[in-house]
Amino acid sequence: MIEPLIECIPNFSEGRDTERIAAIVSAVEASPGVRVLDQTSDWDHNRTVVTFAGGPIAVVQAAVRATAEAAKLIDLNLHRGVHPRVGAVDVLPFVPLRSATLEDCARLARWAGERISSELGIPIYFYAAAATRPERIALEDIRRGQFEGLRDAVVEDPERRPDLGGPGLHPTAGAVIVGARKILIAFNVDLQTADLGVARGIARQIRASGGGFPAVKALGLPLLSRNLVQVSINLTDFEQTPLHIVYEEVVRLAALQGVGIEKSELIGLLPKSVMERGFAHFIKLPEFAPQKLIETQIAPLTFDRVEVPGLFLPGERLC
Amino acid sequence: MIEPLIECIPNFSEGRDTERIAAIVSAVEASPGVRVLDQTSDWDHNRTVVTFAGGPIAVVQAAVRATAEAAKLIDLNLHRGVHPRVGAVDVLPFVPLRSATLEDCARLARWAGERISSELGIPIYFYAAAATRPERIALEDIRRGQFEGLRDAVVEDPERRPDLGGPGLHPTAGAVIVGARKILIAFNVDLQTADLGVARGIARQIRASGGGFPAVKALGLPLLSRNLVQVSINLTDFEQTPLHIVYEEVVRLAALQGVGIEKSELIGLLPKSVMERGFAHFIKLPEFAPQKLIETQIAPLTFDRVEVPGLFLPGERLC
Repeated sequence: MIEPLIECIPNFSEGRDTERIAAIVSAVEASPGVRVLDQTSDWDHNRTVVTFAGGPIAVVQAAVRATAEAAKLIDLNLHRGVHPRVGAVDVLPFVPLRSATLEDCARLARWAGERISSELGIPIYFYAAAATRPERIALEDIRRGQFEGLRDAVVEDPERRPDLGGPGLHPTAGAVIVGARKILIAFNVDLQTADLGVARGIARQIRASGGGFPAVKALGLPLLSRNLVQVSINLTDFEQTPLHIVYEEVVRLAALQGVGIEKSELIGLLPKSVMERGFAHFIKLPEFAPQKLIETQIAPLTFDRVEVPGLFLPGERLC
Repeated sequence: MIEPLIECIPNFSEGRDTERIAAIVSAVEASPGVRVLDQTSDWDHNRTVVTFAGGPIAVVQAAVRATAEAAKLIDLNLHRGVHPRVGAVDVLPFVPLRSATLEDCARLARWAGERISSELGIPIYFYAAAATRPERIALEDIRRGQFEGLRDAVVEDPERRPDLGGPGLHPTAGAVIVGARKILIAFNVDLQTADLGVARGIARQIRASGGGFPAVKALGLPLLSRNLVQVSINLTDFEQTPLHIVYEEVVRLAALQGVGIEKSELIGLLPKSVMERGFAHFIKLPEFAPQKLIETQIAPLTFDRVEVPGLFLPGERLC
């Protein structure tokens, strides 16, 4: 039997203070049975995304520990950043990587949420495959108004109150949005302009909610530290909408306004097939497949030493 | 000790008759200790490129057997195709893949050449790392005039005579150009025009001999079966000149003449790093590395089952 492997990608509302970031990542690393696979911090977003993996119990334990550490270090009342957030740990998704289903991850999310609520006193919203009602499936619906707006909204509006804990948010750590989902690609494209309208316009055109590509969420954000703007993209189903198609459309829409691409940015990890299909697309190589890679072909090769009667290799031996 | 692994990529002057092609490929497959990794036949080139790998003795044995089969089936006097050729087996390169050097492969090439000359009576030219003199390093210099021209040239010009056998060419199988080289990328770009001048002009501009990119060889060829033209490219050092740079230049030069790209074609295999660097380039993702791929990260992961005192996974077990 292959042990289940779960990915967890907490988004922390701290992307500037390197000591705090190190302390939060250390809390994950110090938890037994998990491995940190990737870590990205952004000054403008003021946010750190950590990707780690492990077995189900270990992953939940590490998520709770990291949440405790983040809640100790982050005060949302003092937090400024261009990316929307409601919590010190803003989002906490669980993703099945191996020998696990989305339903398994939804149960892990519920369990993690219960522990965070009861042990740390931080209210919980469940989203995506762990949502408790349809209007909480989409992250952006839960996050509407951000920390400041949600903190006030829950006082008057029972509809917006947390699934666990509350009714008020935690005074400094806000709330954690915990969920289960498939692999998501978080991909940002930085535009060579400081005009936020350009990024917002492109985001509106490409996202599903604006009639754009299915499975695409997008925001236009200013990158104040670099005097640029960014189209920040979440691709929730890369099988349905390929990454390269979204990228090319951003390039095209920007070019229509005379704006070039500064560079792209990948937050977290990418499935290999996305690279393979992207490469084949960009280079117009329809027959391309992993079988056309030397490494794919030779990795499984083992040969017995062949003895051909009467044949020997002349001269010295190979190294 | 890791056993040496050698790649051999014979180019056969038959790309139309499926029975003959199958017989030639079968001769490789039936030889012990080798594995066919890829096979590409083209009607217009009238040529089949087979990629196979194995240990040094096995690879030479398979190469000799396949040459015998091809010489039995192919008569160059009846062969027409757009790709230059001098032999039924036109080129026979050996490439070090694992635990072997270019010098090892040069010795294998010399050995294969001696066997083909003495056992099959087909004259041999050595090229690239197996060349016997500087003016025979480049394949195109040996192949000048093709089968018909070389057959006549050797009568009068001792300088053009084979390294082994001869002085005349084999009446139906011509000569085999045997050599050793690093990994080469054979990559064709089909243009949406029937104007051969466009393909030839682009080939001239991108190839090293025309002052273009280092390590690039290129020809403009007509694809009569599809009423298109092709820029046929050999990239002899993909570290020196990245594939994506050459591709983009072909796209740019074609666009200058209002010509689009129909599609590309890869003959044989591609090193994985070429795909990774190409993808990162096309999508403007400078920080991209194999470590950003989920599969790269999780492949080596193993976790002991973590026992956290007092913690258990509620509900049913994961699948």
